[in-house]
Amino acid sequence: MRDRRISESTIHRLSHYYRALTALEREHFDTVSSRELANREELTPAQVRKDLSFFGSFGTRGLGYPVKELKEKIARILGIDRVWNVALIGVGNIGSALVSYKEFARQGFNIKLLFDSDQRKIGSNHKGITVLGMDDLERQLNENKIELVILAVPASSAQVIVDHVVNCGIKAILNFAPIKLAVPDDVFLRTENMAMELEYLSFSLVNNLPRRSDRKKT
Amino acid sequence: MRDRRISESTIHRLSHYYRALTALEREHFDTVSSRELANREELTPAQVRKDLSFFGSFGTRGLGYPVKELKEKIARILGIDRVWNVALIGVGNIGSALVSYKEFARQGFNIKLLFDSDQRKIGSNHKGITVLGMDDLERQLNENKIELVILAVPASSAQVIVDHVVNCGIKAILNFAPIKLAVPDDVFLRTENMAMELEYLSFSLVNNLPRRSDRKKT
Repeated sequence: MRDRRISESTIHRLSHYYRALTALEREHFDTVSSRELANREELTPAQVRKDLSFFGSFGTRGLGYPVKELKEKIARILGIDRVWNVALIGVGNIGSALVSYKEFARQGFNIKLLFDSDQRKIGSNHKGITVLGMDDLERQLNENKIELVILAVPASSAQVIVDHVVNCGIKAILNFAPIKLAVPDDVFLRTENMAMELEYLSFSLVNNLPRRSDRKKT
Repeated sequence: MRDRRISESTIHRLSHYYRALTALEREHFDTVSSRELANREELTPAQVRKDLSFFGSFGTRGLGYPVKELKEKIARILGIDRVWNVALIGVGNIGSALVSYKEFARQGFNIKLLFDSDQRKIGSNHKGITVLGMDDLERQLNENKIELVILAVPASSAQVIVDHVVNCGIKAILNFAPIKLAVPDDVFLRTENMAMELEYLSFSLVNNLPRRSDRKKT
């Protein structure tokens, strides 16, 4: 990959291409044109070609991109050509729903450990995984080679818990608490706020965006 | 608002500004500079000024933006200066977690109706709302003036159900099924795929993005 800054939107588009290519493979397509890929993802063919050339992938004129190869290449770029060990902290409403979210495992994210600070939840079982207490966090994360942590704790305790997780040496955290968390510069933190997509929809309804330009992912 | 194309990223940044301004108001700030707002959201001051000027908001040099006014303006642009009636279809793991997701109500999204096609779930109660069957969908959506629908159904039935919802006249749908759904051009559809943020993190770990540029929302 070239040493150029990759935007957030580009990375998300790669996730979309990966899913489109997975579908194409399932439908027994060997090749795909930038136009077909663009249509599936409601982008322009120029955008697709730009993204893929950026990652050193060139289609053959008249033949398009080889589906299987391109899919494997994108998997490698996204780091999903391997399995990641994930721990989930907080088995409340959202947390226990995420344990059953099949898309995680499908993409190689293996929820291996569950934690909660609530004594009543410790020892309970979710999808075959026993909930552990927070006292043992560091040892368990190390022993189980956990590289990614999902936080599904209340906003009020999220900063304390993220500090604890960071102190255990974790470098990548996905936060579901609707709050801005502070982490050191060498830790990657993403926050999933599910209301934001509803705000996108209310914006669209109020401003009556034309659908096509709305759906373009830029 | 000027008649210029607004990107997806800009709309999401408005949601972030709104949250930063809500926090600033809580902390009793009357004004905020583009630099402070930029720091809170890990953006550049130039980006903040560009976004806000785009929506016709100008700070006063040396004084900054008035917090309360700017917050109200952004709420109006996002369409969250009012309450939206929302129906949620599918009260499985994700769906029943979403019923309890406080951020929806906080932003003005009022989940008023719950639906499920599973006979064992119909009539059950979630947070004081009784789950209805799908047979009565159209009448209930109309009578309750529902404008937004959240779909939390299995991928295998999502297209059939979204078709049904569209036929009831709904123009804005938030889909949690990890599948690409087809809707007519005049319907706004957003899909929330929670694995994509994990893919962003695995990408970051594998490519070891410098944190600052990673966190910039462009």
